[in-house]
Amino acid sequence: MTNTDDRMRALEERIALLEDRLAIAGLMASYGPAVDSGSAEAAAELWTADGSYDAGIVHFRSAEEIERMVRTEPHTGFIASGAAHLSTPPRIEIDGDTAVSYCYQQVMLRDVESDAFRAWRVSANRWEWQRTSEGWKVKRRVNRLLDGGEEARALFGEAFREK
Amino acid sequence: MTNTDDRMRALEERIALLEDRLAIAGLMASYGPAVDSGSAEAAAELWTADGSYDAGIVHFRSAEEIERMVRTEPHTGFIASGAAHLSTPPRIEIDGDTAVSYCYQQVMLRDVESDAFRAWRVSANRWEWQRTSEGWKVKRRVNRLLDGGEEARALFGEAFREK
Amino acid sequence: MTNTDDRMRALEERIALLEDRLAIAGLMASYGPAVDSGSAEAAAELWTADGSYDAGIVHFRSAEEIERMVRTEPHTGFIASGAAHLSTPPRIEIDGDTAVSYCYQQVMLRDVESDAFRAWRVSANRWEWQRTSEGWKVKRRVNRLLDGGEEARALFGEAFREK
Repeated sequence: MTNTDDRMRALEERIALLEDRLAIAGLMASYGPAVDSGSAEAAAELWTADGSYDAGIVHFRSAEEIERMVRTEPHTGFIASGAAHLSTPPRIEIDGDTAVSYCYQQVMLRDVESDAFRAWRVSANRWEWQRTSEGWKVKRRVNRLLDGGEEARALFGEAFREK
Repeated sequence: MTNTDDRMRALEERIALLEDRLAIAGLMASYGPAVDSGSAEAAAELWTADGSYDAGIVHFRSAEEIERMVRTEPHTGFIASGAAHLSTPPRIEIDGDTAVSYCYQQVMLRDVESDAFRAWRVSANRWEWQRTSEGWKVKRRVNRLLDGGEEARALFGEAFREK
Repeated sequence: MTNTDDRMRALEERIALLEDRLAIAGLMASYGPAVDSGSAEAAAELWTADGSYDAGIVHFRSAEEIERMVRTEPHTGFIASGAAHLSTPPRIEIDGDTAVSYCYQQVMLRDVESDAFRAWRVSANRWEWQRTSEGWKVKRRVNRLLDGGEEARALFGEAFREK
């Protein structure tokens, strides 16, 4: 039976890793819909209570601050005129109970006068994850505008230095 | 053997769920390439025969109507001047033989005069799926422009109310 | 034991296929972050040594040429002023040790004067993969601008003709 047992355990581990990847990808894909629909609690619940989101122009230092961000200006103004926080397929690296993932975020804003959408911010994003009793949660997210500066390049460059 | 059997059955179920998720994600990722290449049948085959696609400005009520849409104006004009139906990574919720998924869609159109692309429509999308003998098919897809109106926010907000 | 053995082997095969899909998706999601951070080696390593990237306006015929592309103009100028190679969720077809995948690529460039991002190129992309001793590698990537011409439509159309 040992052989069967070992093979089965190996399969269980491989499946768990695939499940982790899809869980994290699904949570990343939920951020945009949560904030653009004004679902403040759902957005905040992506983070651990003490998780942070450093968006360069502003730094949220807890899930509560993220919830408040969704409920207040300028965010409420963005979604009142039309906003979309688009993301791209992620690169995900899992290491036991922590993980790091990368994606782009493109924030499209609608101009009320012209009824046209423009790409307001295009940023490099790094997400640090923690496995908790309630599933994967964001411990720290950092994004930096891809404006030619060193910070966004360093953020994405980490993905390849770490290997 | 019962223990081995039970463990194996549990693994089979977990694998089947992962396969479902990737199948649905792959079908969602096929819509754009199908319509932008004028592959009308392939686009229509994503839906059940009686499936619907409510795009706000127009409502297609069967796979046949979707096939016709790809073959006629204004769609043929869009792809003749240059069009891209870009989507974002999905949030997917599977419940047995049905599923619901969410993503953004950004339709980029090329202006022939200036040779520049602009984001014509940026929308919130909800897809309802049915498992059939030919795999997962779209039963109903709804999209709403993220123009600041209540409808797009309500559509994405459902993702978080349902939990 | 044969029955258990057969079931286990079937599970192993299904898991391996899921792992292949996520591996390829992860590599596709790494191209943008690699080139936009100037990680020339990481970008080149996505390809086999003799792999090619036919981008329409230019054709790279080896991993070495791709590495050089990342290190030279015009690419270095793009990332110095702000560039983002955004991609969309892929359609992936695996056949043993080879695979084909499809996605869009949207290259956003920042205009230094106006500090605004514009979609410079929106293209249809086809990637041909080879399983190697170092994992999946790109054997050939082709992209074509979605400018209304026949080439991009033919490229995406292949996905549906092959079925």
